[in-house]
Amino acid sequence: MSGKGRPETARSGKVDMTHGGGGRAMAELIRDLFHRHLGNPILDEANDAARLGMVPGRLVMSTDGHVVAPLFFPGGDIGSLSVHGTLNDIAMTGARPLFLSAGFILEEGFPLDDLERIVISMAEAAAAAGVPVVTGDTKVVEKGKGDGVFITTTGLGVVPDGVEIGAERARPGQAILVSGSIGDHGVAILSKRENLDFETDLRSDSAALHGMVAEMVSSAPAIAVLRDPTRGGLSAALNEISRAANVGIWLDEEAIQVKPDVAAACELLGLDPLHVANEGKLLCICAADDAERLLSVMHGHPLGRDAALIGHVTDEDAPLVQMRTGFGGMRVVDWLSGEQLPRIC
Amino acid sequence: MSGKGRPETARSGKVDMTHGGGGRAMAELIRDLFHRHLGNPILDEANDAARLGMVPGRLVMSTDGHVVAPLFFPGGDIGSLSVHGTLNDIAMTGARPLFLSAGFILEEGFPLDDLERIVISMAEAAAAAGVPVVTGDTKVVEKGKGDGVFITTTGLGVVPDGVEIGAERARPGQAILVSGSIGDHGVAILSKRENLDFETDLRSDSAALHGMVAEMVSSAPAIAVLRDPTRGGLSAALNEISRAANVGIWLDEEAIQVKPDVAAACELLGLDPLHVANEGKLLCICAADDAERLLSVMHGHPLGRDAALIGHVTDEDAPLVQMRTGFGGMRVVDWLSGEQLPRIC
Repeated sequence: MSGKGRPETARSGKVDMTHGGGGRAMAELIRDLFHRHLGNPILDEANDAARLGMVPGRLVMSTDGHVVAPLFFPGGDIGSLSVHGTLNDIAMTGARPLFLSAGFILEEGFPLDDLERIVISMAEAAAAAGVPVVTGDTKVVEKGKGDGVFITTTGLGVVPDGVEIGAERARPGQAILVSGSIGDHGVAILSKRENLDFETDLRSDSAALHGMVAEMVSSAPAIAVLRDPTRGGLSAALNEISRAANVGIWLDEEAIQVKPDVAAACELLGLDPLHVANEGKLLCICAADDAERLLSVMHGHPLGRDAALIGHVTDEDAPLVQMRTGFGGMRVVDWLSGEQLPRIC
Repeated sequence: MSGKGRPETARSGKVDMTHGGGGRAMAELIRDLFHRHLGNPILDEANDAARLGMVPGRLVMSTDGHVVAPLFFPGGDIGSLSVHGTLNDIAMTGARPLFLSAGFILEEGFPLDDLERIVISMAEAAAAAGVPVVTGDTKVVEKGKGDGVFITTTGLGVVPDGVEIGAERARPGQAILVSGSIGDHGVAILSKRENLDFETDLRSDSAALHGMVAEMVSSAPAIAVLRDPTRGGLSAALNEISRAANVGIWLDEEAIQVKPDVAAACELLGLDPLHVANEGKLLCICAADDAERLLSVMHGHPLGRDAALIGHVTDEDAPLVQMRTGFGGMRVVDWLSGEQLPRIC
């Protein structure tokens, strides 16, 4: 942390146990670091709860813990990821996100410079999204009882009138769209793991999708399902949807884009890109008649330039997800027990 | 976890990395443990975001990470504490809490039986409070990168019309009330620390205060400040208020109740009860004319039976907190740099 911002009680440059103790050291950390970068009129009131005023409309709320390792990766860090991840969960209901909260669990000894870098990244992501962090909390655990920093964010948003989106609304005949290439986030993270370091220019796709979603629901309010395929990748997201709606899903492998670097890394590591996490992509399931219009809206947005129709919902073989392969065969897209590699978000 | 509730993928009886991976193992944990105990119509929809419907009125939002050690203590555990802590932060704005979210960060190897005990305790606390857990998230970190379980809860509530409560509203001449004896929670936790184990029947005061608060604001809507003196105790809470409102605060030591077990433990450990955490007590600052009425309301509620007038706000010596001691002198009630002992909540 650059001189001015460092709390007086933290001349060591590291988080210590007093920063979670509810006393002066914590108050200074909150003022000199969190408020300095994340400040906005609601957060600045600095009560234990944020006063949001009246919020007309149907509310949605979502929470997401972030434990990504490493904390900094190509295309982002835990700060920006913790904003994008929760904004996207809100957006996947069709909602406009309005407010965020952030709970930090810091490990004793974590460098304050790194913490400041993370908070600045969080502030930039929140500002770019137009969604303020209105309240927060800081706890500190002893060295060896945490891992640098964990951030749990919670978001609040409002669903536009007439929009009804949910996994259970998938119906046979609907089209399945995806907003771009898959697997970028997972492979970018893996490329920086200590034991896996490999050369790639790949960056995480971490991004806030609510702007594109707003254009999509405005163009086609009858969208049935939106889902961001994060942990477990496209495969887990589609298997969840097929189970929630008790439908079958057919995919066309050739329509699913995988960047050459992602394909090469997956080949090298023995991974299936369908199982690899994304943090800036969405799945959209809609009436077949709306597919062209929605693809055109997505193509006009920077986060959806490579959007494609990748399959459709069927009443056969529910709740299986199956894929027509490049060789013309069909295979079941299975649902792994876990992620191939942990702490991807 | 008793046979039926154990996810099929977790026959070892312990949390493993697959439980955070977004695949089948995580889905089974969520279904067999979280949904089974915390289930309610909103949570059961099982989308990534909870659909809350319309919520008229002025909203407040608060978030709190819980890292208490040990996880189980006399009078509660991290599950009930994570419900009470956030409900109380919401209640301290005068609001009625309506919804909770919960983000779990689990350490690999944590016993599923302990996790189930914690989730049941959380479910009981939420049910007793009448506030559902509507959405959640689970992450798993490797053994040695966490400490059993951390829980970050976020609450949403609505402030009744006409109620305006905040630390900055303290004014000279107002009365300071506290709802009971202080230091119970901190001493109960300390009594179970490995290195401090001492004999006491003391239990944490962990409790949800919003029911009593509802009666208080209904009886005296002009309450200026409510605050739950958690980390840093009464001292940190009053120092924060004196700074926020730029007022002086005078306390009367003889009016502040400390249980004999708490006094003895503090004596033994060299602690000042004014600095020790509470989890079921509130400070109320109100017009002197409202003090008797509010004390009577508090005395009529199980959580306020020992409520007392402990001091008043003054325009002298802002922003100092001072106390008339039992010997007739005055001393400054200082604000520690940290908590005397970490991870109290």
